Amino acid sequence: MDRRGVPSGAPERMDNAMNKIRVGIINVTGYAGVELARILWQHPDVELVSVTGRSAAGKKLGEVFPHLACTGLTITAELEGRVDIVFSAMAHKASAEGIVPLLNKGIRVVDMSADFRLREAAWYPQWYDFDHPAPELLKKAVYGLPELHRDRIKKTELVANPGCYPTSAILGLAPLVKLGLVEPDVIVDSKSGTSGAGRTLTLPTHFAEASDNVRPYGLGGHRHLPEMSQELEALDPQKTVSVTFVPHVVPMTRGIVSTCYAKAKASKLTGGKEELDKIYYDFYRDEPFTRVMQQCPETKHTLGSNLCLLYPVIHQKTGRVVVVSCIDNLVKGAAGQAVQNMNIMFGFPETAGLEALPIYP
Amino acid sequence: MDRRGVPSGAPERMDNAMNKIRVGIINVTGYAGVELARILWQHPDVELVSVTGRSAAGKKLGEVFPHLACTGLTITAELEGRVDIVFSAMAHKASAEGIVPLLNKGIRVVDMSADFRLREAAWYPQWYDFDHPAPELLKKAVYGLPELHRDRIKKTELVANPGCYPTSAILGLAPLVKLGLVEPDVIVDSKSGTSGAGRTLTLPTHFAEASDNVRPYGLGGHRHLPEMSQELEALDPQKTVSVTFVPHVVPMTRGIVSTCYAKAKASKLTGGKEELDKIYYDFYRDEPFTRVMQQCPETKHTLGSNLCLLYPVIHQKTGRVVVVSCIDNLVKGAAGQAVQNMNIMFGFPETAGLEALPIYP
Amino acid sequence: MDRRGVPSGAPERMDNAMNKIRVGIINVTGYAGVELARILWQHPDVELVSVTGRSAAGKKLGEVFPHLACTGLTITAELEGRVDIVFSAMAHKASAEGIVPLLNKGIRVVDMSADFRLREAAWYPQWYDFDHPAPELLKKAVYGLPELHRDRIKKTELVANPGCYPTSAILGLAPLVKLGLVEPDVIVDSKSGTSGAGRTLTLPTHFAEASDNVRPYGLGGHRHLPEMSQELEALDPQKTVSVTFVPHVVPMTRGIVSTCYAKAKASKLTGGKEELDKIYYDFYRDEPFTRVMQQCPETKHTLGSNLCLLYPVIHQKTGRVVVVSCIDNLVKGAAGQAVQNMNIMFGFPETAGLEALPIYP
Amino acid sequence: MDRRGVPSGAPERMDNAMNKIRVGIINVTGYAGVELARILWQHPDVELVSVTGRSAAGKKLGEVFPHLACTGLTITAELEGRVDIVFSAMAHKASAEGIVPLLNKGIRVVDMSADFRLREAAWYPQWYDFDHPAPELLKKAVYGLPELHRDRIKKTELVANPGCYPTSAILGLAPLVKLGLVEPDVIVDSKSGTSGAGRTLTLPTHFAEASDNVRPYGLGGHRHLPEMSQELEALDPQKTVSVTFVPHVVPMTRGIVSTCYAKAKASKLTGGKEELDKIYYDFYRDEPFTRVMQQCPETKHTLGSNLCLLYPVIHQKTGRVVVVSCIDNLVKGAAGQAVQNMNIMFGFPETAGLEALPIYP
Repeated sequence: MDRRGVPSGAPERMDNAMNKIRVGIINVTGYAGVELARILWQHPDVELVSVTGRSAAGKKLGEVFPHLACTGLTITAELEGRVDIVFSAMAHKASAEGIVPLLNKGIRVVDMSADFRLREAAWYPQWYDFDHPAPELLKKAVYGLPELHRDRIKKTELVANPGCYPTSAILGLAPLVKLGLVEPDVIVDSKSGTSGAGRTLTLPTHFAEASDNVRPYGLGGHRHLPEMSQELEALDPQKTVSVTFVPHVVPMTRGIVSTCYAKAKASKLTGGKEELDKIYYDFYRDEPFTRVMQQCPETKHTLGSNLCLLYPVIHQKTGRVVVVSCIDNLVKGAAGQAVQNMNIMFGFPETAGLEALPIYP
Repeated sequence: MDRRGVPSGAPERMDNAMNKIRVGIINVTGYAGVELARILWQHPDVELVSVTGRSAAGKKLGEVFPHLACTGLTITAELEGRVDIVFSAMAHKASAEGIVPLLNKGIRVVDMSADFRLREAAWYPQWYDFDHPAPELLKKAVYGLPELHRDRIKKTELVANPGCYPTSAILGLAPLVKLGLVEPDVIVDSKSGTSGAGRTLTLPTHFAEASDNVRPYGLGGHRHLPEMSQELEALDPQKTVSVTFVPHVVPMTRGIVSTCYAKAKASKLTGGKEELDKIYYDFYRDEPFTRVMQQCPETKHTLGSNLCLLYPVIHQKTGRVVVVSCIDNLVKGAAGQAVQNMNIMFGFPETAGLEALPIYP
Repeated sequence: MDRRGVPSGAPERMDNAMNKIRVGIINVTGYAGVELARILWQHPDVELVSVTGRSAAGKKLGEVFPHLACTGLTITAELEGRVDIVFSAMAHKASAEGIVPLLNKGIRVVDMSADFRLREAAWYPQWYDFDHPAPELLKKAVYGLPELHRDRIKKTELVANPGCYPTSAILGLAPLVKLGLVEPDVIVDSKSGTSGAGRTLTLPTHFAEASDNVRPYGLGGHRHLPEMSQELEALDPQKTVSVTFVPHVVPMTRGIVSTCYAKAKASKLTGGKEELDKIYYDFYRDEPFTRVMQQCPETKHTLGSNLCLLYPVIHQKTGRVVVVSCIDNLVKGAAGQAVQNMNIMFGFPETAGLEALPIYP
Repeated sequence: MDRRGVPSGAPERMDNAMNKIRVGIINVTGYAGVELARILWQHPDVELVSVTGRSAAGKKLGEVFPHLACTGLTITAELEGRVDIVFSAMAHKASAEGIVPLLNKGIRVVDMSADFRLREAAWYPQWYDFDHPAPELLKKAVYGLPELHRDRIKKTELVANPGCYPTSAILGLAPLVKLGLVEPDVIVDSKSGTSGAGRTLTLPTHFAEASDNVRPYGLGGHRHLPEMSQELEALDPQKTVSVTFVPHVVPMTRGIVSTCYAKAKASKLTGGKEELDKIYYDFYRDEPFTRVMQQCPETKHTLGSNLCLLYPVIHQKTGRVVVVSCIDNLVKGAAGQAVQNMNIMFGFPETAGLEALPIYP
């Protein structure tokens, strides 16, 4: 233990080090990257051996992020040493380019970017303004939402870690869509903390602009929309789901609530709230992190945890189905889900490193 | 000018006092009441002569609310002196009971409570848990949304000042509904600052609970729902509008954004965004406070002002109509709109006392 | 009145336009500049005729700042038309350079930068890293704190508008220092909202970094320190005041509270709180904006107003004098005080355009 | 694992249950109590067996605090089953009364209240308005600041867990005072999140009042003052330290920064910052949670962790020593420190259950 560091439990870790996998993070300096470092450092089956960053290369990780001083790691320009798996937190396009050589070396990858989330290469120019540099990998990559694709995640070398908004929306709507209970025309109204926009400085995330403010955006079409549509359509028996998605930024650091609206098909869900609850409980029965709640959740109930809290109801006056879905956007919406995917890929307990209870208040 | 007070411009006011109307506020100690005091004190055609409150009776207004120290007013248990108009910020039911004797004396009233907003007495037991004490007044009262009912407001003795959520939602949807452009099944997803819940202490508005949090609520049916339905149905050519309304509390003090979703009727709105804009501009052409925006507004753009900022769009992928509507819930959503109603009732310039530009940032 | 603008009361203004002075703002796009625009637009004796900005030149003011859409102004690269007074919100050094030609044309100037606040040219290289381009003007410039220098402000062509921290600290300590009541070794511990750091993007003012955080800074010496020292020393009979100043950024948009600590000289202030209050009341007796409070003020009590709220006490256990001083950093700490200075320079009522009560809550 | 619960790792725990101590929490429903439950639930050497609460008795813990649903615990009116140690989170006076019978049964106690923090029974009527019900225990109780009293904590049955402000201030000033380096007249200016005021509803902690606000308070003498004085005086070679303490509430949920001001004695600390750093590093060399920083810390660097981050400097212009001290008020300032004390009392690794890295951002 170092006097300047959080007690690291280093001795115990050393004993197990030979059984641990070796992990690297590319571009540790964004919020997803630094959250990965926090979680992986505390993971019992992992040794975090290398973290990279461009502008901060050469600095100690603890110099840039004082809460990680105990790791003793130095940020390097390139990955160093042998690694079994890499988390890529690079920007779109750069990530796809950077991942190919890793896969060629037999290193498994969890990609935090959108570069392998969409199945059709043609969607990348349309939504992300670039031609996909490795379209052949799109078929191999697995969309890393364990609740839907656990079996495929077990066997893949490349996980496309889902976006934060899609995670909340898809988990919220999956039971309804998969069972063909609602009209294929849903609305997702999401409210997110500002950390979802990352650590890059922008005027809308300047404190004086974002505080005391709610800002709807992406009304012309947000990049997370095709991801939601793709996954929900794949679930739908008729493959026809249409999604209207409007995100909003609210003055908090972490958290997303997606309020999802759907219309029951004729003669469906006649059993009301009771039937709805049973459907959700059954659908997520064995899930370690996705919980159906008996009272309406709030984003605060997820802070720092990998939970997704769901609350389905039938609106009293209109009969419309409303599903509230809450996550911590940096955990279940990013780094936590990435670690959950890694756990599945390597056969670790799925909850390893992710047991932390939410921080409250 | 008093050394302890904001310069009051008192001398000038005295000169005009004979031309001014005399105003009272019942229950000045809530957020709507105190905001009324702030606005009315600065209103050129008004003399604020009496403010009441129960627990604070006997105290100086400036003792409870230091920013109003300059008024020199004392909170009393009952209205004192002659008044031409009273703003009632009493709780539901108490307000209806307290207003009747005022009307009988010929005093005009703007009621901040919901007691005269609903047209049907039968709805009060259902939504507000009380039998209406003055059902005969429900027909006389005018729902105080100037954009829809200006002519009737001019002639009434009793204005039912609209709720904050309904103000934002109705102004957002009125053009679509009145012109019969959308299916009569709309969704209103609202995000509000905590001041809408008032100054009464509750756990959900305790700072440590409300900060870093978004809290959906009212999923079982919020009291502002019948108000929205009533007004939108009245506008609709077929009188059949159904409203799904879900409010959320976000960690800011003031502001509401309502994101409204509707589906264009077949063969309607084929002109796209351009047609939509024209419809909104025309509908609100002469309105002093309701503005159609060319870029998406944020709640911060309304802080402290009586503005309602609207932004209608057609969602790229789904063709659904989305309308963003922003207000300051304590101004256009409460006290400011009440003063606007008073201005109309007394023939003052409609913007008198309400000219303040929004505070930014 | 334009349907897209806040009602401007334009007709009445036009009638008086010939009696109004013509005002320009250089660099309107920072928080001080845009707050000047808001206040000056509503000022009865002023016509805001020209606003400049570099990167935004050519845009409508309302395009960049929607709350100012009603002004109809366009941001230009250079001042346009005749102006009687200019508010310079340029950066340090650039402001001094830009102001000289204005003064040479006989245009009066209120400078929002620090370029004319310090009396000694030698301090600029030391604290601001540049050689002063117009040292001869330092003697002509008047430090624009009306409570201390009103008579000189009346006669000057060039006002150096005080910094936000110094305004709060100097007003808090002036009575004690001027009357020689305390040891000449004071501590100023200030807490500021983030808007004081301006609209320029920085990591510490990124929302996710600044929220849920208190950040002490400037421990190596903040640029507002020499300004405080200079003004307090000038007041001190012995000219020997030493100031320890530590600023902190707290997660709010506007507001500063400076908590000032001083030690009574032997045999001074033996009359306790009562004597202390009397000293402060007498010192600020005729001030329109600086108020001595009977209960401890909070920054919220000043929001949007030009008030400075003071609360002097004697600490129960130690006898140390503590003075709490609250302002809105963008009003009394910047734009409001600048307008107050203009009012004094032109013989307008000192409170003209500054009568707005604080916004609460 | 329950589908509604966070994965609990229950199987592994059961295996070890026989080696674990059994723990109870009295009054789990305040913020200190619920934070104790969160930490203790995840503690490897502890079985949390009983939690009490008055108004919530009979409810599931997860019903009141959804983030603790996984514990499966029910809140009871009285402690149930055998316990080895109890954490009392009762209010002042009630705690002292409730603890006596526990001690008589041989149960060890960590008291979160102030009831055993002060050494002199006479101070309780003066500062807490009650006559101490068990003055004989004041000598037995140990003030639970491990950095100062670790050896005594090891042997005691009763730990008085320190207040949040005193924890930050005493750790900040202890090296200076103990080594006799500064004049015995120090100033502590503290800024705290609102959770320090607890879960009880009050107007100043109502969101709309606390947001966008800094509120100085306790200027007439805060209850944490005698605690600071007692501990600093005990350290001081001359036993004469006088403390001026002014707390402020800032709009964040968790975190305290205490900015401490002291004056070096003549001929002391002539070695400047370098000497100062060495003194602090040496003083806290072996401490697992108290870290001396190389750059100024912020409260955000401690969120959710048991760290105390210190930064001593010498003010450039005045030579005054300034020490910044940051903690999470609910962890090192309450529940975390209480668990640290328990670890010491039972011979567990001092960091057991407290290894979590801070949450950022």
